[in-house]
Amino acid sequence: MPRIVETIVTTANAKGEVHIAPLGLIEEGARWIIAPFKPSKTLDNLRENPFAAASHTDDVRVFAGCVTGRKTWPLVPLPAIKGGRLADCVSHWELKVENVVEDQRRPRFACAIVHRETHKPWEGFNRAQAAVLELAVLTTRLGMLPPEKIENELKYLEIAISKTAGPREEEAWSWLMEKIAAWRQAMFDEAAGKS
Amino acid sequence: MPRIVETIVTTANAKGEVHIAPLGLIEEGARWIIAPFKPSKTLDNLRENPFAAASHTDDVRVFAGCVTGRKTWPLVPLPAIKGGRLADCVSHWELKVENVVEDQRRPRFACAIVHRETHKPWEGFNRAQAAVLELAVLTTRLGMLPPEKIENELKYLEIAISKTAGPREEEAWSWLMEKIAAWRQAMFDEAAGKS
Repeated sequence: MPRIVETIVTTANAKGEVHIAPLGLIEEGARWIIAPFKPSKTLDNLRENPFAAASHTDDVRVFAGCVTGRKTWPLVPLPAIKGGRLADCVSHWELKVENVVEDQRRPRFACAIVHRETHKPWEGFNRAQAAVLELAVLTTRLGMLPPEKIENELKYLEIAISKTAGPREEEAWSWLMEKIAAWRQAMFDEAAGKS
Repeated sequence: MPRIVETIVTTANAKGEVHIAPLGLIEEGARWIIAPFKPSKTLDNLRENPFAAASHTDDVRVFAGCVTGRKTWPLVPLPAIKGGRLADCVSHWELKVENVVEDQRRPRFACAIVHRETHKPWEGFNRAQAAVLELAVLTTRLGMLPPEKIENELKYLEIAISKTAGPREEEAWSWLMEKIAAWRQAMFDEAAGKS
């Protein structure tokens, strides 16, 4: 299987307006595939301006924020291409689309890294950061998975949070838990309405 | 809660022989706590030579290897202190013990970072790497946890492996699964012996 890295992808439209989205990039030899869903702003932007940046941030609040309506994060301009990257990231890549494979659901944009920079030292693995990422993914599938499965995974992920989270990870987790609470309430209301 | 980072800690004895161990370092203000178990080689070394290196590697084979008897990884000398670090790591810290709090089970060595270096760009989060780390932790507790719990967590972690692992993560996973297979066999043999 190809490796997939979870990162913050920024794309710009023709006017230079930057859109931010957490996305998995798929490794394919020396290239990285961006496969945005149809329809999406990332897809529109890649059609208008075939470049993107991948900001590898260890601040998981950005991932949790993007799936809970907190999409405004400080950006800085890019040296090599149009657009912006996260101001706070460990490293970033600037990507140029070299090939597009069309698809009904997720067209695949194969990109070359045209520039890369490191901005601060990586501080190693943190299990709570990984748990936040997993819960962020899970919260995008709340309507699609059995509630017991969600509650079980949540219980498992909470262990890493309680043992290894710092303040940033706790804040990110709390945003996701607000979303979980709203989903639980909606299920309760629905059940009550049916009774 | 304090953040804990999972890293590869190297310590040296008085003769300069380096010992490698995967350990969680606990953040405490500007310091990082190493809390080795009693007895352990890391503990002995920190008493003899109060320095350590933390190699932040994204090659999870080192973590999986250390818990499956594969403890030989290429090391290089350190610029600031006696000992060595992983030759292949994203970044590393050199740590000096500043304070020791004794404990019956796990003495706490509070360390200052006296030197840090970045060696290559961090390539972002990978869910499979996190899953390997979780399974590595799990395999150190096989005798202590209910088998159903282990099998359930394994099933959950396998999802990230099947979706996002590259070759390094797959190899690390396979080493851990050999250990799981041996544990399953031992449980089977024990049950058969009792029947």
